[in-house]
Amino acid sequence: MEIGSATQENTRPISRGCGWLKALPGKFKAKGFEIVTKTKKLGEDDPRRIRHSLKAGLAITLVSLFYYLRPLYDAFGQSGMWAILTVVLVIDFSVGATLCRSLNRGFATLIAGALAIGTEHFATLFGEKGEPIVLGFLVFFIAAASTFTRFFPVVRRRYDYGAMIFILTFSLISVSGYRVEKIFELGHKRLSTIIIGAATCMVISIFVCPVWAGEDLHNLVADNIEKLASFLEGFGDEYFKFSEDGDSAMVSKDDNSVLQDYKNVLNSKENEESLANFAWWEPCHGRFGFCHPWKQYLKIGVLSRQCAYQIETLNGYINPQPQAPSEFRRKIQQPCTKLSSESSKALKELASAIKNMTHPSSCDLHLQNSKAAAEELKIALEASPPVKTDLLEVIPAVTVASILINIIKSVENISASIHELSDQARFRTVKSNVIAEKPQLFHSGTVKPISDGDGDGGDGDGGGGDHIVIIVSPENGNPQGLMRSQHVEV
Amino acid sequence: MEIGSATQENTRPISRGCGWLKALPGKFKAKGFEIVTKTKKLGEDDPRRIRHSLKAGLAITLVSLFYYLRPLYDAFGQSGMWAILTVVLVIDFSVGATLCRSLNRGFATLIAGALAIGTEHFATLFGEKGEPIVLGFLVFFIAAASTFTRFFPVVRRRYDYGAMIFILTFSLISVSGYRVEKIFELGHKRLSTIIIGAATCMVISIFVCPVWAGEDLHNLVADNIEKLASFLEGFGDEYFKFSEDGDSAMVSKDDNSVLQDYKNVLNSKENEESLANFAWWEPCHGRFGFCHPWKQYLKIGVLSRQCAYQIETLNGYINPQPQAPSEFRRKIQQPCTKLSSESSKALKELASAIKNMTHPSSCDLHLQNSKAAAEELKIALEASPPVKTDLLEVIPAVTVASILINIIKSVENISASIHELSDQARFRTVKSNVIAEKPQLFHSGTVKPISDGDGDGGDGDGGGGDHIVIIVSPENGNPQGLMRSQHVEV
Repeated sequence: MEIGSATQENTRPISRGCGWLKALPGKFKAKGFEIVTKTKKLGEDDPRRIRHSLKAGLAITLVSLFYYLRPLYDAFGQSGMWAILTVVLVIDFSVGATLCRSLNRGFATLIAGALAIGTEHFATLFGEKGEPIVLGFLVFFIAAASTFTRFFPVVRRRYDYGAMIFILTFSLISVSGYRVEKIFELGHKRLSTIIIGAATCMVISIFVCPVWAGEDLHNLVADNIEKLASFLEGFGDEYFKFSEDGDSAMVSKDDNSVLQDYKNVLNSKENEESLANFAWWEPCHGRFGFCHPWKQYLKIGVLSRQCAYQIETLNGYINPQPQAPSEFRRKIQQPCTKLSSESSKALKELASAIKNMTHPSSCDLHLQNSKAAAEELKIALEASPPVKTDLLEVIPAVTVASILINIIKSVENISASIHELSDQARFRTVKSNVIAEKPQLFHSGTVKPISDGDGDGGDGDGGGGDHIVIIVSPENGNPQGLMRSQHVEV
Repeated sequence: MEIGSATQENTRPISRGCGWLKALPGKFKAKGFEIVTKTKKLGEDDPRRIRHSLKAGLAITLVSLFYYLRPLYDAFGQSGMWAILTVVLVIDFSVGATLCRSLNRGFATLIAGALAIGTEHFATLFGEKGEPIVLGFLVFFIAAASTFTRFFPVVRRRYDYGAMIFILTFSLISVSGYRVEKIFELGHKRLSTIIIGAATCMVISIFVCPVWAGEDLHNLVADNIEKLASFLEGFGDEYFKFSEDGDSAMVSKDDNSVLQDYKNVLNSKENEESLANFAWWEPCHGRFGFCHPWKQYLKIGVLSRQCAYQIETLNGYINPQPQAPSEFRRKIQQPCTKLSSESSKALKELASAIKNMTHPSSCDLHLQNSKAAAEELKIALEASPPVKTDLLEVIPAVTVASILINIIKSVENISASIHELSDQARFRTVKSNVIAEKPQLFHSGTVKPISDGDGDGGDGDGGGGDHIVIIVSPENGNPQGLMRSQHVEV
């Protein structure tokens, strides 16, 4: 299938495989080994792929019975092939995708079939000579118009397959009706086998190891938030890593692949939208009701990507040249690391709230902690004005601090949209299991830590309760700095 | 097609159209008007959509002749439907997509047909009772295995349709071979009509108003770079806009939609990859040769998106709260605006180089100008150390400056990848038409502007030539500040 590769004289480095023929014989063994390894990896990465393949094989074998069993063959004859054709075309990885195709196929066949029979009857009014001309004109017009509807976003998203099947069925029936006498009988047989084929796919896809697009979307959105959290969790240590002689150490980014996981979030839009479209077709299943707010997941996805863009910019500063002086970085290290880690904890809480379908009440505490860290960072910045030549040198560190502060806003937006999801999908409210900041971090005897039972009070946007600011000097053992919470009592 | 919408009791705001039925009757007229408006807009936005629809109608009408013309119907009989089926399934918007599907369809049918006939013969060895069992097992095994191959990225990218058609043809022929006597004749007729259908699509798609995926990719990549340029062009004025009383004015982002065009770049990956895959199938056409380096466009796309991520972060600072004091912003305004505008000019040159397929030689001059502006910015930052309380207030402006400086690196990367493309695709080298910086900006009589004829010397990475730094005091009428170029002679 390498179009005309034999005619290629050009040896440019990037081309459609020019010159691969020469290297082929010696690579057979390695290629075979590579294919086996890749196959194994594909199966291990997601065993549902193997199950889906077996389900597809099963569905095709089942509808083959139209040919193998004499009574069925006698009843449907060659129309049995439409069942096979339907199964191959409509069976898909997820339940939603299969339902989307099956229902599109069924309804489009029905509507197009009816329209085609009407058209055929209308064309016969024009006599033997006029019939093919009128028929040809109508087929041209309806096929062109239906093709154009496929450019409408809503059709492209949900009914693209239906539009294609509509064109197919309409053309086939109206055109073949010109030659076939018993068009009703043909249409009836064909429709029955198509319905049987589509029903087979739907039953197998729903009842044999179902893969729900909605559940995949749910997990994808939660995983993406977790990936952002992982970056922020590691960022502080990565950016402020000091070598033994006291200077910032250059760290290879490759060592920290978990820090790079967020890159998958940057391009997740298409995947999320396709899953949301398929989820729309799915009936209620497991924890997901009939009117589950799938659109809200797309909103969360947009906000996650906005956060990921900021993280991408931040990532560019991990190995900056020239390095800011260690003295300034040491001063902002503690609040920056805390801000980053508390934002990370908030995101992890949000991801876990989605996964467990619980109200993300304890995330607000972490958000407040990270805001407190931002205040602390601002104080650190105010307290250490750079000397005359310093501003230039501290620019990267100042930028990192500034972006980190902005990330809090992103996390807040994500949190708000997940609260919205939680309300719309009626997530359970559970008692928070967040462990309070260790008491020894505060002035002894003045702060009572949060008990597990108080957790529920932490939801909302922090409007209620008293805000308390406690500043602990950095020299203090494990400097937790500034703490702002609804849950501490002085 | 609203699955079970009748059973819905829930009135949550975001759901699958619950409650739309109530509002329907009163909205008929408005809906009709909306559809007409949308249809008109779709056609006006891209008239190729209308042409594609007419082409699809034409192809279907042409293959209908298998039924309308007596000699053709006598020769092929009901097999003519395979031509219609093939046309509906393979015709697509671009030449590449149509070729991909047509060739996949042709080859897959050929291979699957041969394998199916072999399988059928093998199964007959097991006697009348054993045949359907062996056949059923083989169909199950081959269908499952072929379904699994569709998970391989390379198959999914280029041969997904072929794999589907392989499963379809193999199942249909091997299964129906169990009942049909003249399997060779059937296969021959079917293959002929499929080839005729696919050939009709290919001919129409190539020779009637062709839409080349490669050309679309080429233009998309150039347009995306232009969108980044438009943001950077307007950013300086937008960020440093001062109201009449001397303070920075808050500007509504909505007023400046051209500044927001870059957002399309953020999610262009999927589109670029699909176009590149289709472009791979296209023969040489217009300005694009047979081994045109389509993969290089994907590299440029990745780098454009990296730049867009930084721009997205930058965009977040356009309306910051609290505002940095105007005094400091005024100081960095001139170099920041120049940096941004020179980066924008470099990107515009690169976009235009792609569009015109010329070597982007004059872009280097703008890149050097923007680097010079970065140096100037650093000097401005050094020269204005903030007073004790200032660091906190100038953080947003410092961050903007820092990100702008980083953007130069992104632009350089884009430039390098376009130089690579230019070498691989042998873009024409043309004389630069860049107008040199106005002489009055420099010390009079000391700088000779670049003549048009010197332009070609500016390519490469700036390794050659002398670098000259000229500092003009900011009080100077139109302060162009610092200039660094290979093209000026003192």
